[in-house]
Amino acid sequence: MKEPLSSLMQTMIPAVEQEMRSVLQAEDKQKDLFYGMMHYHLGWVDENLRAIQVVAGKRIRPLICLLVARAAGGQWQQGIPGGAAIELIHNFSLIHDDIQDASLTRRGRPTMWQIWGANQAINSGDAMFSLSHVALSRMIERGVSADIVVHALRRLDETCVALTIGQYLDMSFENRPEVTVDEYLEMIEGKTAALLAYSAELGASIGQVPADNVQHYASFGHDLGLAFQVRDDILGIWGDESVIGKSSATDIVTRKKSLPVLFGLAESAELRKLYMTEESDDEFVRQVVNLLDTVGARQVAEAYEESYASSALQHLEAALPLGEAANALKQLTELLLNRDS
Amino acid sequence: MKEPLSSLMQTMIPAVEQEMRSVLQAEDKQKDLFYGMMHYHLGWVDENLRAIQVVAGKRIRPLICLLVARAAGGQWQQGIPGGAAIELIHNFSLIHDDIQDASLTRRGRPTMWQIWGANQAINSGDAMFSLSHVALSRMIERGVSADIVVHALRRLDETCVALTIGQYLDMSFENRPEVTVDEYLEMIEGKTAALLAYSAELGASIGQVPADNVQHYASFGHDLGLAFQVRDDILGIWGDESVIGKSSATDIVTRKKSLPVLFGLAESAELRKLYMTEESDDEFVRQVVNLLDTVGARQVAEAYEESYASSALQHLEAALPLGEAANALKQLTELLLNRDS
Repeated sequence: MKEPLSSLMQTMIPAVEQEMRSVLQAEDKQKDLFYGMMHYHLGWVDENLRAIQVVAGKRIRPLICLLVARAAGGQWQQGIPGGAAIELIHNFSLIHDDIQDASLTRRGRPTMWQIWGANQAINSGDAMFSLSHVALSRMIERGVSADIVVHALRRLDETCVALTIGQYLDMSFENRPEVTVDEYLEMIEGKTAALLAYSAELGASIGQVPADNVQHYASFGHDLGLAFQVRDDILGIWGDESVIGKSSATDIVTRKKSLPVLFGLAESAELRKLYMTEESDDEFVRQVVNLLDTVGARQVAEAYEESYASSALQHLEAALPLGEAANALKQLTELLLNRDS
Repeated sequence: MKEPLSSLMQTMIPAVEQEMRSVLQAEDKQKDLFYGMMHYHLGWVDENLRAIQVVAGKRIRPLICLLVARAAGGQWQQGIPGGAAIELIHNFSLIHDDIQDASLTRRGRPTMWQIWGANQAINSGDAMFSLSHVALSRMIERGVSADIVVHALRRLDETCVALTIGQYLDMSFENRPEVTVDEYLEMIEGKTAALLAYSAELGASIGQVPADNVQHYASFGHDLGLAFQVRDDILGIWGDESVIGKSSATDIVTRKKSLPVLFGLAESAELRKLYMTEESDDEFVRQVVNLLDTVGARQVAEAYEESYASSALQHLEAALPLGEAANALKQLTELLLNRDS
């Protein structure tokens, strides 16, 4: 990875990790299962609560928050509790998503509900939600004014409402034969774009830049989130299995209503017919990919991705970011969008 | 009901209800299922989202908050968003509890998860959790200072952590043969006492009384919560079925580890043996109640209740509450503890 992103990451991410460990009492409550379930989910311990070190998420959201704080001329250290809060909200939503999707594994390990049951996992997600707010309010202890913290908390919860609206739509789609591209975009605005928008907005609020610039940073995060999600959808079908760690067929076999698929379903009667069958073998997957290729679904999705990405970069520029953090934000954007996993 | 409690209630509870309706967009989003599920749970609509009026909870917690705000010399109207927040937290926890306990009905109506499934209900609870925080932050718009609001939010989330610890313990107890009375008390401290303590504490913070008095108000709420829960346990066994609306046998048949039962299990080998059987008929219930009566479990539980109640009233007095709200708080305490449902 290139400079300055590489060295800023190496300073910022461990600082956020340390803050999360402090909020979640990672040292004091090492043997306590109430905290231990959360420690497990975050990759700090194994299912017997023994300390381990696994890669549990890239911590992209807090990184964006802190890079923006610095690019906005703020002291990025003041944003560390905010970064921790964002990462904890993200992980709270993953714990509940895994129950709702009946996912057996996450990041190569059994999901929390698989080990301790859905009831405890619902409760553990609730606990992490609360602790995320506790984390954010710790910005006070780093000298951020009460006015800024109250506003940041209000916006965090409005963001969480957006997240739950996105999740509500996503679950509703499963029971509906037809979903439009517009409905899909509304869903990913809630599920993915809202929290990335908030990450950038929170960073900007620490820099105390004018409202217009805060808005540009938020739009940068928002559009980056949309581009990121569409990229995910593309990788879910055309990604290299050995790189993304799951069969690219999964999204097709489960009939996931991703952007390329929705476009394909709208364009191809043959695909609609195929999707109504119970098929799930390799031949089915091959046929689906073939039909998607024929109608140009990949190009359409890539056009969406590029359009969001370019809008994100325009907003970033309009926000007038400063110094090496500005470059790091551009590098991170490139990295997220050109990823093959 | 006696004055002044009666008239204060009639002013305060509708004000909180109005605030909750505003936060939950009860008029604008009447046909939107995302909001509609929450409206249903709160008793504002039926399962087809048609407006109805049912008794959905007594709104005791916000009432305590606002009575304390007034007794502490504050403008109780400033606490209305706080009261709404507390009631929403309480109801969020009920939505998730109903899933965890597999409860089919609540207040005589099908539970949310029974109608819309557990996945949507988990998410709806999460949404209400977020909106509760949004409600609290609206105290700013009523002229409460940012310092007080940030602190109130911090304490709300610490209270929610206590709630989830209580729920964690409660679920853990189901899988354990032996639970001590101390463990039980730790559990109800989280599940019941913490939010009542917070209700009183929040009210006191609006009155801006000295820290010592805030602490006395919090302890009043805390001990009232413990007494209230023990009363619930007693009614769960010796309550009049026609009044409490559920068979008093339910707690026994489900082997609920309530305070009288834990005492009975510790004292009577015969009861321990009986509880290990699969029995659930009327004869079983009669035998259990008999054994509980023999070892004096009811008297023990009542002694706990009275001790907590008297401690609650002592703290209330030590908090130096003012005017008619002080009397109303005493009346409410009496009412909650002498209830037979």
